[in-house]
Amino acid sequence: MSNIAAAIITIGDELLIGQTIDTNSAWIAQHLSELGIDVLRRVAVGDDRNAIIKALDEEISGASLVIITGGLGPTADDITKPLLNEYFGGRMVVNERVLEHLKAIFTKRNRPFLERNMKQAEVPDTCTVLFNKMGTAPGMWFDKGEKVIISLPGVPFEMVSIMEDEVLPKLRERFYSDALLHRSVVTAGEGESFIAEKIQDLEEALPAHIKLAYLPGAGMVKLRLTGRAADPVTLSKELEERQAAIADRLGNIVIALEDIPLEQILGRWFISNNATLGLAESCTGGYVAHHITQVKGSSAYFKGSIVCYSNDIKEQLLGVKKETIDEYGAISEQTVTEMVQGALTVLGVDVAFAVTGLMSEGGDSQEQTGTVWMAVADKDSLKTKKFWFPYDRARNKEMTVSMGLLMIWKFINKQ
Amino acid sequence: MSNIAAAIITIGDELLIGQTIDTNSAWIAQHLSELGIDVLRRVAVGDDRNAIIKALDEEISGASLVIITGGLGPTADDITKPLLNEYFGGRMVVNERVLEHLKAIFTKRNRPFLERNMKQAEVPDTCTVLFNKMGTAPGMWFDKGEKVIISLPGVPFEMVSIMEDEVLPKLRERFYSDALLHRSVVTAGEGESFIAEKIQDLEEALPAHIKLAYLPGAGMVKLRLTGRAADPVTLSKELEERQAAIADRLGNIVIALEDIPLEQILGRWFISNNATLGLAESCTGGYVAHHITQVKGSSAYFKGSIVCYSNDIKEQLLGVKKETIDEYGAISEQTVTEMVQGALTVLGVDVAFAVTGLMSEGGDSQEQTGTVWMAVADKDSLKTKKFWFPYDRARNKEMTVSMGLLMIWKFINKQ
Repeated sequence: MSNIAAAIITIGDELLIGQTIDTNSAWIAQHLSELGIDVLRRVAVGDDRNAIIKALDEEISGASLVIITGGLGPTADDITKPLLNEYFGGRMVVNERVLEHLKAIFTKRNRPFLERNMKQAEVPDTCTVLFNKMGTAPGMWFDKGEKVIISLPGVPFEMVSIMEDEVLPKLRERFYSDALLHRSVVTAGEGESFIAEKIQDLEEALPAHIKLAYLPGAGMVKLRLTGRAADPVTLSKELEERQAAIADRLGNIVIALEDIPLEQILGRWFISNNATLGLAESCTGGYVAHHITQVKGSSAYFKGSIVCYSNDIKEQLLGVKKETIDEYGAISEQTVTEMVQGALTVLGVDVAFAVTGLMSEGGDSQEQTGTVWMAVADKDSLKTKKFWFPYDRARNKEMTVSMGLLMIWKFINKQ
Repeated sequence: MSNIAAAIITIGDELLIGQTIDTNSAWIAQHLSELGIDVLRRVAVGDDRNAIIKALDEEISGASLVIITGGLGPTADDITKPLLNEYFGGRMVVNERVLEHLKAIFTKRNRPFLERNMKQAEVPDTCTVLFNKMGTAPGMWFDKGEKVIISLPGVPFEMVSIMEDEVLPKLRERFYSDALLHRSVVTAGEGESFIAEKIQDLEEALPAHIKLAYLPGAGMVKLRLTGRAADPVTLSKELEERQAAIADRLGNIVIALEDIPLEQILGRWFISNNATLGLAESCTGGYVAHHITQVKGSSAYFKGSIVCYSNDIKEQLLGVKKETIDEYGAISEQTVTEMVQGALTVLGVDVAFAVTGLMSEGGDSQEQTGTVWMAVADKDSLKTKKFWFPYDRARNKEMTVSMGLLMIWKFINKQ
């Protein structure tokens, strides 16, 4: 049995002029995909009657499930609700549960419930109401023959709440489909084409129901296997065999068999080894620490970073010797070595990482733009490495952080 | 003169299964909008031949300009290039400039140039090549009658670089003979509707060839005047008169007459006042320092940040008293006050900023999630402020940094 095909329509001018980044679609797609429903198209249109109707016609004709977000608020430019009422040939009726909920919200906010607020409690009589406990605009579920069309508010936490409480359970019941599973192999240090070459025979030998995708990022390439089959147990086993074969072939460029960020992989190691981490950052200006602290629970192992943008901070707080900087420069193996040693001692951590470099032209350094020295150390060993990044300031900083996290990973994994 | 209608097609399975959030579309929409080009639809499809062709047919029929991103890498799942070649009835030819650039990249990375890499230098002979100095996959510009179809790589910084260097200038030439100019007024601390009310008469008095757009961000609203006219000198004068009138009316909520980030506005103040800045960051984990150091030349005034994620670093490096943390908690006015005083002294700076808070549930704090204390000080005065952010971890961190930079701006401008 083939998968259910879905489409997502997002409504709102703010999405088209680039003022808002659409995070709802990714959330919806991820969660539908876990149910085995494939999102085949996503369309964004403005708050425009004709554009919305055109999108509805097109997407309903091509998919079994259409999820619409946005355009449900109380203001003049939110036109989705009356339009859907008309589109599905219904009439607007007051929903008592929504009305009660609205009145409670108004009371709580100490605002009078006016006649015009009644409109917010009205819904098309052709829909099943999807209760919105997080806000005022209810979601709506329409059945049209074999197809399902769902309208949700655009506010992310309201959308998520209705999806989790109402939509996903109902969809699971409504549609049966094959299992869809993913397995990942995360690699670092080699490019897409190197990897493709290396696993060409494994890729060519994949059966028709398993696909391989390359997802490149800074210094890393993620390989994602996607399989579809009736039986999830067999499929899972099959995928894991393919995953293991690829990982085995790629050897030590593999850093994880799960699609999670490198900083989270590091976090797991520090937690399971009961170790602490500290940083001394010059050219990255706190950006390595920012990545580390994006991980929830990082306070269990991350003690801090000394962002020593100026040389006197390197000397005063990290104990880098003035003579070292004078003789070798702030961007040198000698300076980064003293920085990492300083971080180990001053922050009192088990593992320290230090970085110094020149992200863009200017400053008084003699070094070539893009030159970066990094060091990582524990009480027993210390490693340094020189990098050179050829991009602009922002991109060089991104690359430095990716390579820095990778250097920490290699160090703790004794590579 | 009416605006040009554009559509954006993004290609890639990773967008449909929700693994990647589409930030490219927002960037493209914003920059087209500055040229006076309106994005009317955005469509995302997977790495699927029929889906891509259907999207091309539909979007080309409804728009004068179609921009396609993604699907241009060297691997098997990147099918856009051969597909576009076929779609526009061309044949693949090796582009010498691209080939030379590719070989240089491979040499620099110390990798062998493989036979399959030759394919990356091939482009349809029906397109104008858009040189990609940041990566390996070139962009492609196709003319089809009066319409323009552009294909770009999906890697964000490669897309941005090609758009800025090649696409935007060419689009200006292709679609407009008039001069197009922008002037901005950046405000902070008041909402969109307050501002709209205050400058209503000025907005209504704008001539037809000058438009005003409101671009709200975290704690800030940018007003952008866009003018189009035959004579750039007269237009520039006109725009600056309108800009001055708006800025004058809005008084001290105006923080800049240029559309630049707040960290750059801060940088100018520190340079022209020959003053230095230092930070003490707990919950932002170096993210404020990251923003400050995104500005080229920031080493002239930014000395560093003590990222004190753990309490003992707050005590040891910043001199926060243990009793203060024990009695009031790490997230308190008392602690943030001692942090900012510590930063002033330890980093030896003229102005210091400190922040401590709880970005997501967990940890041992008694405070409500989203609670943040900030402080800013110089040798004469010290200000503290409590904030509360209701979002998830990542968004709360972003909001904290925006509000923190704004707090520094208000402090140095004595507001």
